[in-house]
Order: sequence, then structure tokens, then C-alpha cells
Amino acid sequence: MTTKEIPYKIYLEENEMPKAWYNLRADMINKPAPLIHPGTHQPMTLEDLSPVFCEELCKQELNNTDPFIEIPQEIRDFYKMYRPSPLVRAYCLEEKLGTPAKIYYKFEGNNTSGSHKLNSAIAQAYYAKQQGLKGVTTETGAGQWGTALSMACSYFDLDCKVFMVKVSYEQKPFRREVMRTYGASVTPSPSETTQIGKKILEEHPGTTGSLGCAISEAVEVATSTPGYRYVLGSVLNQVLLHQSIIGLETKAALDKYGIVPDMVIGCAGGGSNLGGLIAPFMGEKIKGNADYRIVAVEPASCPSFTRGKYAYDFADTGQVCPLAKMYTLGSGFIPAPNHAGGLRYHGMSPVLSQLYDDGLMEAIAVPQTEVFAAAEEFARVEGILPAPESSHAIKVALDEAKKCIETGEEKTIVFGLTGTGYFDMVAYEKYHDGIMDDYVPTDEELEKYFETLPPIA
Amino acid sequence: MTTKEIPYKIYLEENEMPKAWYNLRADMINKPAPLIHPGTHQPMTLEDLSPVFCEELCKQELNNTDPFIEIPQEIRDFYKMYRPSPLVRAYCLEEKLGTPAKIYYKFEGNNTSGSHKLNSAIAQAYYAKQQGLKGVTTETGAGQWGTALSMACSYFDLDCKVFMVKVSYEQKPFRREVMRTYGASVTPSPSETTQIGKKILEEHPGTTGSLGCAISEAVEVATSTPGYRYVLGSVLNQVLLHQSIIGLETKAALDKYGIVPDMVIGCAGGGSNLGGLIAPFMGEKIKGNADYRIVAVEPASCPSFTRGKYAYDFADTGQVCPLAKMYTLGSGFIPAPNHAGGLRYHGMSPVLSQLYDDGLMEAIAVPQTEVFAAAEEFARVEGILPAPESSHAIKVALDEAKKCIETGEEKTIVFGLTGTGYFDMVAYEKYHDGIMDDYVPTDEELEKYFETLPPIA
Repeated sequence: MTTKEIPYKIYLEENEMPKAWYNLRADMINKPAPLIHPGTHQPMTLEDLSPVFCEELCKQELNNTDPFIEIPQEIRDFYKMYRPSPLVRAYCLEEKLGTPAKIYYKFEGNNTSGSHKLNSAIAQAYYAKQQGLKGVTTETGAGQWGTALSMACSYFDLDCKVFMVKVSYEQKPFRREVMRTYGASVTPSPSETTQIGKKILEEHPGTTGSLGCAISEAVEVATSTPGYRYVLGSVLNQVLLHQSIIGLETKAALDKYGIVPDMVIGCAGGGSNLGGLIAPFMGEKIKGNADYRIVAVEPASCPSFTRGKYAYDFADTGQVCPLAKMYTLGSGFIPAPNHAGGLRYHGMSPVLSQLYDDGLMEAIAVPQTEVFAAAEEFARVEGILPAPESSHAIKVALDEAKKCIETGEEKTIVFGLTGTGYFDMVAYEKYHDGIMDDYVPTDEELEKYFETLPPIA
Repeated sequence: MTTKEIPYKIYLEENEMPKAWYNLRADMINKPAPLIHPGTHQPMTLEDLSPVFCEELCKQELNNTDPFIEIPQEIRDFYKMYRPSPLVRAYCLEEKLGTPAKIYYKFEGNNTSGSHKLNSAIAQAYYAKQQGLKGVTTETGAGQWGTALSMACSYFDLDCKVFMVKVSYEQKPFRREVMRTYGASVTPSPSETTQIGKKILEEHPGTTGSLGCAISEAVEVATSTPGYRYVLGSVLNQVLLHQSIIGLETKAALDKYGIVPDMVIGCAGGGSNLGGLIAPFMGEKIKGNADYRIVAVEPASCPSFTRGKYAYDFADTGQVCPLAKMYTLGSGFIPAPNHAGGLRYHGMSPVLSQLYDDGLMEAIAVPQTEVFAAAEEFARVEGILPAPESSHAIKVALDEAKKCIETGEEKTIVFGLTGTGYFDMVAYEKYHDGIMDDYVPTDEELEKYFETLPPIA
């Protein structure tokens, strides 16, 4: 097949869209470690999880056996508003670089939430509605998840309470307004509206908040308000399950043209995008049907995979959530304040953590000025302004494509372009003005944070 | 054909994309009035236009005879990065409204410029490059055109100098940063860098600028700098020609499913989107092959069609540009400062002005709070955050769909969704906070502006 027979954008037909999510856990030989109860340290049961999450989502969280879980028709109908998302052949970029590599990216920014987060938000809102709930609570940092969830709740007429990390609430008023457009209430965290918020404000007056703190507040409100549950946009098994639609579509589009990737690259914060993108490829790899290089890219300033420990840790500052075994920097880890965009979470999805520990995937940490340089290089030829998070994957894809110029290899590189950077122009401005720095934590600093790890074998 | 056979989004295949733009002027019985020279009042010739615009674009500007003009391969390749754009069947909106109407929208916001403006920007940049120019100059108000042009210039390695209306430059720093990301230089207008800018600053110290003033500055720089030409994002015949790709794709997608619209609705500022969207439909109407209702929607605060005069007028404040015969409020017209978003130009495309004068289309003026209410109603079910400009068309489409609930008519309504509102959250915030007003100029005010019309028969 010659290059010209592959279109710039491969769109699946509506009837080629996946009808079930792919549950990679069913095919994993070493299953991800279970969530454990913060009090008893026993594996969380359906009963333990139900006060926090919707019933159906608890089942999905614990389901390590069914490889496919049907996508309800209502969710498939919603998906049709913005899916299938395009798999783009980056012809313009290849030509500009002069590389023999073939570069593809799966673009998830073509919806108003501006990112892949909508894929799970709509599923979680749907199950909340099915259960007859009044509403849901959540936290948001950079704001992509909060935006996606507010859209999903608006669609299903659910109340949506978002705790937004205070520094983002103040620095990103536009994100806040998008959420308000979709009818969500947005509270800066820590707030005086929760016990845990008050406690944190007493202990750290003037704090600008953190994701871990906002999670604690959202969980407190969900568990203390009748008719409410908590929802989360990353890390959890259920979220990776919903995000498998990204990988399924990507693989179907590649299969349609007989394309076999050499590498699949994704950015990794909590792991929602990466876990979804790689799921069907990893499944084939585990079964021995294919041997892809699978690469997680994380910020050098928040290096969970490359410098973290694989251990049970708290998911939130208030330590009200179940504990998860994951690559973590310690729940006390405070991301560099000048780090732009997301990927700031101290931990990593238990599924991905297990796969990484099993040597089935690699991880690369990259400094942020190089990420923004790659973002700009990409934007200028491919016409999409990428989110800083997504640009971590771009950085490594560009590096690999440039290596192919040296070696002459015609590698096929696939990466996930998770979203757009419209709300990140302050970070781009810093980059343009040359005032962006590349803070990397020292070993001593990391050791200090590791001390916050709970003593669980 | 039953409803279910029509997908949520109709995408054309790459090989179904138009290979030529449609030049509606060739089929118009009454041709649009020619541009005339500001000094001699004689029709502008190729020779007159060439110092201002690229050679090939001058030819397109004057071409009233060829119905189809081939799209060069390089432009078609660029189009493939973000086109064909989807024609969306608004099933979710129809269901929410409970209307028997069938609503379709052509979504042009799926590219980083965030609007349809890129369709003409890439064409104009291409011809500038072909002519061996070093760069181009332009003006931008809300910033969509400047963003699109900076992307296009970056792609073809052309220098891009943007004069941005000062009030927008200050209020929309993120738009400015996007342009910088694509390598453009952005100057707030009026500036000290041009003669006309200095003059305006002397006469009106502290002015926050206007589109008419920024046009004058951009034209001055283009005509006084070797290797530069001026480019414009709306009003001109050439721009409507390039934007015909919107209408051609829309009509091809509808034809593919045997759908015949009853109404085609678009927002109108200078007319670039509307002229492009309606072109092939209007062509059929002129030839007597079909009878669509074609509706322009404009803001009540800047009502060129509904309350303007059809007369020769200046295109710019500095009166250095050719004069155009158009529906106009007078070049001295100052749009309400609190009007959100674009559609603030005093005049209207000569092509559309002629069609309107011939009774081939209608126009409706709508107040801005109703526009934002419609925008929010749409966003909550269709998942796209629309630009304020685009929302003018949404407002009228919703009104028509609601009328169908009363009458039971199954009207097929097609409207143009020109772009996204990511950079318009300040306006949305005003709407949420209830501090948006609905200023409409009085008849006395309009009479005062009409006095600025030049005395040309």
C-alpha cells in the first residue's frame, strides 16, 4: 500500500464504532493490586465502595474478569456527537521534519471539554442517572475533567459540584465560566464548606490548594449528602475502562489500512488517557500476538514512574479515600508551582503501575521547556494547538521521528493527542517570554516525600 | 429514508471534497457593484489592485464570469488537515426541544483557529507565497482572522504582521499568544508605527481603536514595504469565493442522503461565512432549481442589513481602501463597546448586499442576551461551546425549530456553526452575571452615522 492511499484523517464509520469497552485487566496475567480500606487495610468490597461511587461503577472497578463490557446505547448515542475521533496521519509534520517515520496521532480535543476526559465523564454521569441520583461531586485541577463532567451532567440533568484547586480557580477564570455555562457549581478548594477543608485551612492558612485536598472535599460532600456520589477523572480502573474507546478506535482505524505501529506513545498523569490508548495494543502484546513499544511520557517535575516507588499510598490529602498500590511520589508530594498544565498527580493508575512493573511498558520523563518547544513545532505545521499535557507525548514522538532521520528507519509511530491548549495560553506566554523554568525535584526532596508513604507491605 | 439512516455526523470522504471553489458571481443575474477608486471613483482595475493584494487574488476579486476556480493542490492538501468539516444532525437538540424539525449544522470550529477563517487564510497565504512575497499584513478584531492567518503564514513560512484593535489586544491576551505561537508579530492599533496610526492618535488620544482604523494601518504597511501585500478576512469577493468550500461540502453531504433543506441560516458580520455557506444553494435558487429560504442573522447593535443603507462607502477609517457598494451603517459607525464578539463591521459583502437588494435572501437582527441564551441552550445538549458570532445563527435556528412545534411542520433547517467560544468566556461571564445589556442604536444615532457616507450615486 502506498502512502497516498492512506487519508490525512482516518475516520471510522458510525457503525464501526466500538459497542463495548475493553477491560484490559481480564487479559493481564498479573492483575493490578486491589484498592484497600484506609482503616482495615483489607481489599475494598462492593459494599465498601458503594457509599462513594455509583453501584454500576463499583462493579466495573472490581471487575478483573470480563474482557468486554457493553457500552449502553445512551452513551453510544452521546459518543456519536463527537466520536469517532480522527486518527490523523501527520503528513505535514513528517515532511517538515524530513523523516522517513510515519506518524499518526489520535486527536481527542474535538469536543468542547477540549480533551478525552468526556469519554469517562459521560459514562459516569449516565450510571449516576440510572441509579436515580440527584448529583455528583468531583475535583478538578487544570479544569479539563471538571469541564467534561459539567457537560455530561448537563446532558443528563444531574447536579454537578466541582471543587477546583484554588490556584487554578483564580488563574483560570475562563475554565470556571465554561463549567458555569454547563450549569455546574464551582467551589475553590480548600473551602469552608467541608470539615476537611476547614481543617486544612486552619493548618495551612493561605494555602492555594492541591488536587489531593480537593479530592478529600469532594468525597466528603458526596458521602454526607443524600443522593450524591463521588466521581473521578483518572487513576481508577473504571476510568481506564471507559477510555479504552480511544485505543479501540485507534486500533480499528489502523487495522482498516493494514497499519501496524512500532510504538504507541501517550502522556501520563494519573493514566486515564494512556491506559485507554494502549489497552487493545497491550492486550495483543500480553497474548503474544504483537510486540509494540509502549511508552509513557511524564513531566520531569512530577516523575511518578521514573523516580517513584511502587507501593500502597493514599490517593488524597485527607486520607479518606481507599489506598491504591501504584507508582507514587508520596501523597505529600507538592508539584512545582510553576509547572504548567496537568500531569501533577503524585500517583499513577494501578493498572499501568502493574504493567510497568512487569516490564511491559517503558517511561520517559521530559522537562517542560522542551515540551513547549515540541508543542510549538507541532502546532505550526499540524494546525492544532496542543494542551501542555498532550505535548509530552508530542515531544517523545518528535524525538523518535528525528532518530529515524539518522537511522533511515521507516518506523510507524502512534501517539495520543489528548486535548487542546486554548486555556493554557498563560503557560505558552511564559514560554514565549523565556521565563519558564525546568524545576526537577532533587533526590533528597523525593526521599522526604517518600516518608509520607504508609507502612503497608 | 428513516431518520436512523442518517448519521449524527455526515463526513464526506477525502475524495468527495470539492476540487474547485464555486464563484457565485458567475451565476448572479445582477452582478455585485465593482469596487471603485477612492480618488477617481472609477472601477478598480487589476493594475489598481495589484499594489495592495496578491496578483492572483486580484484576478479572483474581479472575476465575475468563471463559475468554478480550481483549488490548487497545496491548498487542498492543507484543507485535508481539518476538512471535510462535519455536517452534524442535531438529534440531541431536536429531542430536547421536542420539535418535529430536522436540524443540521455545519461545524467549522474543528481547527485551531477555532473558526471558518482558516479556509481563506490558507488560500491567501498560498498565493502570496507563489508570488514570492516575504509577508502579509492584516487587521484583526476579535482575533479569529488573525489567528487563522498566522497559522497559514507559519505553514508557508511567510512573515505575518497583524494589527489588532487595541481594546481586543488588551482584553484578549490569549488570542495574542496564539498568534505569537504561530510566529506572527502583533501590534495594537492605532499604533505609532504608521502615519495613519499617528494621525488617529493625535486626533483621538486614548482611543481604543476600531477595525476600520486597523485596516488603514495594515494597508499602509503593506503598500509601503517591499515584498508585502495586504490580506483581508471578510467582505471581499475573493474571501467569499474561498469560503464557498463550506457550502459545497454542506450541499454534497446533504445530497448524499437526499436531504433538501427548507432554510439555510448563517450569521453575518462582513459576510464571509454566510456568503460561503449559501453560495451553492443560492446558485440553485437563482437558476430556479430550488427555493430555499436563506437567512442572514446580524446583531441588533450593528444592523447593516436591516437598518443600513445600500450605498458606496469607505471600507476603512483612513479612507485609503477602495470604496464598495454595500449595505452599510456608515464608516463612522462605532459599535456598542459592550457588544460581545465579532460581527461589528459597519458594512457588508457587496455580493450579499446585491443578493439582499434583489430579494433573494432575508435578514433578521437579534439582541445579544437572547443570542447568549440560545448559545447556552445549544451548548448544554450539543456539547459544543459556540462563539458569540455563530450563536446568532443558533438563535434563529432555535426560534424556527420552536415554531415547528406549534405548526407541526417537519422543516429541515441548516445553519452554519462558524466557530468555538473558548476565547469569549468574558462575554459568557457577563451573561451569567446578568450584566450584559442590549444596546440598540436609535434612528437618530444611525442618521448621524449615515452623514459620513460619501456622496456617490
